[in-house]
Amino acid sequence: MSVRLGIAGATGVTGEVTLRILRERDFPVDELRLFTSRRSAGQRLRFDGREIAAEAMDEADYSGLDIIISATPSGVAREWVPRMAEAGPVVIDQSSAFRMDPSVPIVVPEVNPEAARDHHGIIAGPNCTTAVPLLAVAGLQRGVGIASIICSSYQSVSGAGRDAMAEFVDHARKALDQLEALRGHEPLNLPDPEFFPHTLAFNVVPQCETFPEGSDTSTEEAKMEPEMRKIFGVPDLVVHATAVRVPVLVSHSVSLTLSLQREVTPDEARELIGSFAGVKVVDDPQSAAYPMPIDAAGIDDVLVGRVRANPIVPNGLALFASGDNLRKGNALNAVQVAELLTG
Amino acid sequence: MSVRLGIAGATGVTGEVTLRILRERDFPVDELRLFTSRRSAGQRLRFDGREIAAEAMDEADYSGLDIIISATPSGVAREWVPRMAEAGPVVIDQSSAFRMDPSVPIVVPEVNPEAARDHHGIIAGPNCTTAVPLLAVAGLQRGVGIASIICSSYQSVSGAGRDAMAEFVDHARKALDQLEALRGHEPLNLPDPEFFPHTLAFNVVPQCETFPEGSDTSTEEAKMEPEMRKIFGVPDLVVHATAVRVPVLVSHSVSLTLSLQREVTPDEARELIGSFAGVKVVDDPQSAAYPMPIDAAGIDDVLVGRVRANPIVPNGLALFASGDNLRKGNALNAVQVAELLTG
Repeated sequence: MSVRLGIAGATGVTGEVTLRILRERDFPVDELRLFTSRRSAGQRLRFDGREIAAEAMDEADYSGLDIIISATPSGVAREWVPRMAEAGPVVIDQSSAFRMDPSVPIVVPEVNPEAARDHHGIIAGPNCTTAVPLLAVAGLQRGVGIASIICSSYQSVSGAGRDAMAEFVDHARKALDQLEALRGHEPLNLPDPEFFPHTLAFNVVPQCETFPEGSDTSTEEAKMEPEMRKIFGVPDLVVHATAVRVPVLVSHSVSLTLSLQREVTPDEARELIGSFAGVKVVDDPQSAAYPMPIDAAGIDDVLVGRVRANPIVPNGLALFASGDNLRKGNALNAVQVAELLTG
Repeated sequence: MSVRLGIAGATGVTGEVTLRILRERDFPVDELRLFTSRRSAGQRLRFDGREIAAEAMDEADYSGLDIIISATPSGVAREWVPRMAEAGPVVIDQSSAFRMDPSVPIVVPEVNPEAARDHHGIIAGPNCTTAVPLLAVAGLQRGVGIASIICSSYQSVSGAGRDAMAEFVDHARKALDQLEALRGHEPLNLPDPEFFPHTLAFNVVPQCETFPEGSDTSTEEAKMEPEMRKIFGVPDLVVHATAVRVPVLVSHSVSLTLSLQREVTPDEARELIGSFAGVKVVDDPQSAAYPMPIDAAGIDDVLVGRVRANPIVPNGLALFASGDNLRKGNALNAVQVAELLTG
């Protein structure tokens, strides 16, 4: 089956990676249309040797399409995704806008492909910071069951989009000429960051997204538990996350402490983890082999390693994972869902 | 009392920071001698308007000194610290060489100053990755008691010394010209790292120090529990650490999950944490105020914030802390111990 496909938010970094993944996977594109904000409309992107001009979202007719992959921010998605779906195509929405809507499944094809059948025009993808630990522990959830997860993240800058990446690179270049300032011996002189609350150049910032009025938990941290519960179908799973941005361009990493439903040795855990599609165990610390963002960037698998017993929580297991947030947490997952719908 | 002081490892980055802190604190130096490896001997360092030539450690006579602060790697310390102590001066050793020796106290002056009285010529400082979480939780240990700590670290490059910092800066400069490689779209072309198992340029590496034969736990991770037990004097404290290096020049950060001896509200916890000397609570996430390495670098206080209840461990509390690893974890602590000895 050949697909008439639309991509909304096509000129952003996720749109770019989506086009790359469509080619990599030989996705059967019959017709491709690109949608973007009015500001970026007219911008031409290459796909399969052709140039395609992006159409303004508020002027487009969506009725001739089978599927739209929407990679816009959630504010934009909230307004436009329902309109696109009403026009006919199934919309695979990467934003958080509809994830908690009971009529919208969150689909991670390796984990809950059956949920894709129950859509009412909109299918959500997981948050990128949910997707990496979700895949990392999916084999343990299937094989043993997980009672709770403590997560400290090491999230890359690209989660905040293309302009945020450019700002970070600019700051990093300028900061490298101010080494005494980076050591705290004199003030650091950088432009005010526009896309982050503080500069990320050689810094670590324990804030991703925002803190709602009166809350000590960021929106990013708050997403993980309900999304994991919904995707795994385990309503009593407890997740406590600390979301931290680090000076890395692509790939999110997480340090996880799991409490499992029964005791599992690290060897057994590695086998369960690695038996899951989309996951690769890299765990030979003696040979300096473990997950790192630099190795996870640009590949489809989530890398898992540093698997150890944890003595503090019941049936405790610690692990470290890295995954390309633009791929599994985003564009790759969307294309996989599109494959499910058409396969 | 004025002190005849020696600094071993004076030409390294910790030696440099030690000299800076002696000046900042107006430490009463009567005579200052600097010791270093044969390779760096003769190098001249400035202190109080004078230039002092570093002496080769294996040719020096240590007998005329009151105190030596030793900032050498542990292999060097193992050989030289006992010889220095035999010559007369009390040696404050920053390395891990003697920390677990029952006759050597590990002293953190804010926490266990009384232990400094029980030395037999050698006093150890804590590991830098122990010092930051130790100070962060010291008020909770004193006020409530801590049963266990889960720690994921975000450790800076400077923990590995001056040459490691230079290598990192060189890699970072080169990597900034290879953004497509950092995104995983083409191979990254960097010199082989000499001081780390993998490059840290825009990468995260879940290895600090080394993994002993047959162990899934790095030497850095293994230090934290016994050091905290010894300094706090709590032999049944359980600590599980995941030590991760991040692309930051100075300051170690940690994401901690504590299980306390009784339930404590975040407000009560912040009060206890902030009541401790050497600690500053920075915890107003709505205003983007929380600990960050860039703010902790160059100051004495350990910064603590993101204090929240954790629902997973009994009486659970989560927090995030940043501290200058060259100061509190190292040079500052050593100078404070020297002040204890002379005060």
